[in-house]
Amino acid sequence: MAHHTFTPTAYHNTIGWQEPVAWVESGDTITTTTVDARGFDIHWQPIAPRGNPMTGPFAVRGLEPGESLLVKILSLTPTRDRGFTTASVAPHCVDPDYVRELPPNDLIYWQIDTDTRTVQLIPPEGVTMPPLVVPLDPMLGCFGVAPARSQFLSTATSGDYGGNMDYRRCRMGAAILFPVHAPGGRFFLGDGHAVQGDGEISGNGVEVPMQVTFQLQRIAGVSIRWPRLIDAEGIATIGNARPLDQATQHATTEMLRCLITEGGLVPAAAHLWLQQTVRYEVGNVFDPAYTMACQLPRAAWPDSLTDSQMIRAVLASQ
Amino acid sequence: MAHHTFTPTAYHNTIGWQEPVAWVESGDTITTTTVDARGFDIHWQPIAPRGNPMTGPFAVRGLEPGESLLVKILSLTPTRDRGFTTASVAPHCVDPDYVRELPPNDLIYWQIDTDTRTVQLIPPEGVTMPPLVVPLDPMLGCFGVAPARSQFLSTATSGDYGGNMDYRRCRMGAAILFPVHAPGGRFFLGDGHAVQGDGEISGNGVEVPMQVTFQLQRIAGVSIRWPRLIDAEGIATIGNARPLDQATQHATTEMLRCLITEGGLVPAAAHLWLQQTVRYEVGNVFDPAYTMACQLPRAAWPDSLTDSQMIRAVLASQ
Amino acid sequence: MAHHTFTPTAYHNTIGWQEPVAWVESGDTITTTTVDARGFDIHWQPIAPRGNPMTGPFAVRGLEPGESLLVKILSLTPTRDRGFTTASVAPHCVDPDYVRELPPNDLIYWQIDTDTRTVQLIPPEGVTMPPLVVPLDPMLGCFGVAPARSQFLSTATSGDYGGNMDYRRCRMGAAILFPVHAPGGRFFLGDGHAVQGDGEISGNGVEVPMQVTFQLQRIAGVSIRWPRLIDAEGIATIGNARPLDQATQHATTEMLRCLITEGGLVPAAAHLWLQQTVRYEVGNVFDPAYTMACQLPRAAWPDSLTDSQMIRAVLASQ
Amino acid sequence: MAHHTFTPTAYHNTIGWQEPVAWVESGDTITTTTVDARGFDIHWQPIAPRGNPMTGPFAVRGLEPGESLLVKILSLTPTRDRGFTTASVAPHCVDPDYVRELPPNDLIYWQIDTDTRTVQLIPPEGVTMPPLVVPLDPMLGCFGVAPARSQFLSTATSGDYGGNMDYRRCRMGAAILFPVHAPGGRFFLGDGHAVQGDGEISGNGVEVPMQVTFQLQRIAGVSIRWPRLIDAEGIATIGNARPLDQATQHATTEMLRCLITEGGLVPAAAHLWLQQTVRYEVGNVFDPAYTMACQLPRAAWPDSLTDSQMIRAVLASQ
Repeated sequence: MAHHTFTPTAYHNTIGWQEPVAWVESGDTITTTTVDARGFDIHWQPIAPRGNPMTGPFAVRGLEPGESLLVKILSLTPTRDRGFTTASVAPHCVDPDYVRELPPNDLIYWQIDTDTRTVQLIPPEGVTMPPLVVPLDPMLGCFGVAPARSQFLSTATSGDYGGNMDYRRCRMGAAILFPVHAPGGRFFLGDGHAVQGDGEISGNGVEVPMQVTFQLQRIAGVSIRWPRLIDAEGIATIGNARPLDQATQHATTEMLRCLITEGGLVPAAAHLWLQQTVRYEVGNVFDPAYTMACQLPRAAWPDSLTDSQMIRAVLASQ
Repeated sequence: MAHHTFTPTAYHNTIGWQEPVAWVESGDTITTTTVDARGFDIHWQPIAPRGNPMTGPFAVRGLEPGESLLVKILSLTPTRDRGFTTASVAPHCVDPDYVRELPPNDLIYWQIDTDTRTVQLIPPEGVTMPPLVVPLDPMLGCFGVAPARSQFLSTATSGDYGGNMDYRRCRMGAAILFPVHAPGGRFFLGDGHAVQGDGEISGNGVEVPMQVTFQLQRIAGVSIRWPRLIDAEGIATIGNARPLDQATQHATTEMLRCLITEGGLVPAAAHLWLQQTVRYEVGNVFDPAYTMACQLPRAAWPDSLTDSQMIRAVLASQ
Repeated sequence: MAHHTFTPTAYHNTIGWQEPVAWVESGDTITTTTVDARGFDIHWQPIAPRGNPMTGPFAVRGLEPGESLLVKILSLTPTRDRGFTTASVAPHCVDPDYVRELPPNDLIYWQIDTDTRTVQLIPPEGVTMPPLVVPLDPMLGCFGVAPARSQFLSTATSGDYGGNMDYRRCRMGAAILFPVHAPGGRFFLGDGHAVQGDGEISGNGVEVPMQVTFQLQRIAGVSIRWPRLIDAEGIATIGNARPLDQATQHATTEMLRCLITEGGLVPAAAHLWLQQTVRYEVGNVFDPAYTMACQLPRAAWPDSLTDSQMIRAVLASQ
Repeated sequence: MAHHTFTPTAYHNTIGWQEPVAWVESGDTITTTTVDARGFDIHWQPIAPRGNPMTGPFAVRGLEPGESLLVKILSLTPTRDRGFTTASVAPHCVDPDYVRELPPNDLIYWQIDTDTRTVQLIPPEGVTMPPLVVPLDPMLGCFGVAPARSQFLSTATSGDYGGNMDYRRCRMGAAILFPVHAPGGRFFLGDGHAVQGDGEISGNGVEVPMQVTFQLQRIAGVSIRWPRLIDAEGIATIGNARPLDQATQHATTEMLRCLITEGGLVPAAAHLWLQQTVRYEVGNVFDPAYTMACQLPRAAWPDSLTDSQMIRAVLASQ
């Protein structure tokens, strides 16, 4: 299990079947950097075209379509002491007849303090308001693998391959499993947020460049339809679609499959198990595809799930 | 502030402008009972027609349309040691092409233990599975006030008047504020759940009769559009509609209004305040109207919100 | 088959289980009048509360829940030479980020000429534009029967009982079949439009009082789930729900049922029959429930449908 | 204005920024062929991978992003006497609790007679039913131009660039205008249907290879957001999204823009003009993005629209 350091020289505004920047072995770890969502680096230099420029892709030798790629986020650190958002909740996130009351959608800056682990709003001129300080909680907004059918998809959207899910549990310590469509998987990452509210209702978290260390692992025996996130809190299956109802259907169906296949429950038992233990979390309700996570808290896992190949793989190298 | 004990002799399957069973003073408390969602009492006797039969309505003297009714759930106790659910996740909660794989939707029983505060599944015959025990967490699935325009609405659905929201934070300790449409408000309650997963994806929590004690309070100076829930965790505005996207729009818009009107923030500040602090919670994705809660955790409240008339009213009599 | 003339003295803003204003025999015809959507009569006098005030309800002796009520619109005539609409397409009918570009939503008047059978816009002051004349095409926006479960539902919305469907084929010559929930059916009508575009995207057709003659007929042997409209063009099943996708599912499912039950096709044949012959029409995309009609043009009917009890009943008294 | 004949040797399952197979001058016409949706040619030989393989792309010299490409379908002829569909209406096109009643989704064949201009179902074995003959009405299901941001998008879906819209008015005689994102526009076509019902509710029209002749024209002065279709009946703006509500918003907003920009109406007039004249047509409710067309029948056009550059371009070479 080697460790690689990668300094990007180019970025992608689609997630597709681009040539990998590196082929690594399953289990290897990589340290790299990402620019912010508008392509600015740590010195606010515009070094990539706007719209979630991606670092990567990184490919895993021997990883084939139909298998899964496990990505563990080992560390995630903002590399600039200032991030930005836009000012207003998005028109499609409020009632249509309330849109005329939205404020101007100016660019807004937030001060990031990695010592106190806080993010503080810098109030825009002319807006008087109490100080707003939120805990630093770095996450990746957009990351995933090459999609099916040789597509190259805008980093604005998401799908079964991951992408711009903007789900705040994609933070340090999380392991995310993706279905593999292309040889090597081809993992892209970017769109770091120093913190993000549920739903990403202004269209952004506090956007910052990041330094990221992650591990890539081939999971040959687990075939999934939608991304799965495993962390200390539990396991979440992630559905991406519009409307949110459809994202919820995808996530719920995938969790039933997970309980049957990895959890070893018979179908009737999977339904009974899930119905009173399930928790939902909203990733985003801003992007072209919305994101809903269907999660089973760790306290509610059947033992068989804990013993599954998938979970043992997650725990293996931690 | 008087205390009333009310023993229902009839139940309603609509929430409407029915004659109140009692008129009370603002601040009074009431102890009463509810039957389960199918109209069974504590002895499994069918004493009300199926479909969320409601106890009530209770009216508050002097409470007028345009004002708000604050309902505090002071205690909530299952009065039967066994509840029921149905077996399968609902067809509209999974992917359409997965519907054919759903198990038979039999009636399922759960054992409720108020000493250990647990709810345990009684596995149906023929289904082998590990024991499933979940924490007891009683809540009300359906409750609310008379809707606008003299409507009488089925207890299957919900709207700005409350109704069948199936939101699991409607538990002991919660205070819920409703917009008042009819003189006296007219508060109905029923559909108790010993526990419920997010989304109510099987169409039910663990359905039980309840003994409930609650306080009704007139809030004259606060005019709201959607229900608001305040508890130890924070404040949530509740939107009810289909698709879930629209419920989310309602809830988010109402939270912006709340931050502006009760929180005293200028609109531009309300947008900035909410965007990185907001949390969403799914009530139900089963009923004719879905339920989404937009919440602001207590740690993220501006001081002005804490000092508002609305919050002081909630704290007053606790 | 008697003919009745009814002059309303009161109006309803809900469709519910109100006491019938008259009980008639199956096959009887009724001539009555309706006020416009805001409760104005032919002299612009406000004689009913705003919000689609209904004339009726009319009940049919012997008509029972589980049966169907067939309503034939025998004549429909605007009784005022001027109607109104509002000026702007509704905020929820355009892209959310376009809402800020909508014009003021003023009241607009249209001149109705029953001789030339035209409706002409009276341009509002300050708006220069070419003359706009559209063909007169009178229809009923809101009509239906008492809904299930003793509900009283706002005339703003619609459901399986009909209601505010705002579907422009509900004109003279159309026969509409409703599922019956209450004894006698209890038929309400109002919300006449001199003409209406698809979707009712401004929230109104050209609103006018009407004189209406219709026939009510008990159809004992046909049990339906959603309204069906039969006219010279064909048959349409009508779904009412949000989002429009769900309205479409309701309408399509009901058409499959119709082809199987009334059309006598085996299920596999019904699917094959419908897939390449179906036409959809949008009723409204404005009201709380949207309306989609799934239609089978008359040229594509299987003979067995033409011979069905339902169609024979429609043809019988024409 | 040259005429080109192009015989494809390869096909694409994405619509993207592939190298053009030919660069032509604005006004040139092209005759080419397409395979059917599963990649079969006129002899039922599988010569392209399944999933709407595309012929093309064809590029127009001098056509730049921000301009529009006008495509006129000059002729469209099925080149095989037999097409196929699948048997069942799709699970997501019926009510979720009706899915279990869907018939097996077998492959079904239809006989195409270009002399009688009919398409006749060949009933599958074991299904007894009356003969089903529908008029031949050839159309293209999937066609469009390279999408924004260098994407390569599956031919299963659609967007502002066109794609798999499955809208039955895309037949001979129609002129379709696309927004241009890539130099040359890059026009792809395929997925011919001998006939198709509204909604494409089984997921297919009667799938056949086609011979197609079309004209490509650069429209430099017209900048659009969504495709527009002009034919003898009128003009339609086409929105592609899920849910159908959002597709409807896109199409309606684009029609308002069209009436303002090409029709020369002031915004207030455009809203008044559209509200009582608009007609909607459903393209598909099957694909990942649904398709709704907002149309203004020719009889309702303001004169200024008839005189616009866009319409003159359509009429020019007909």
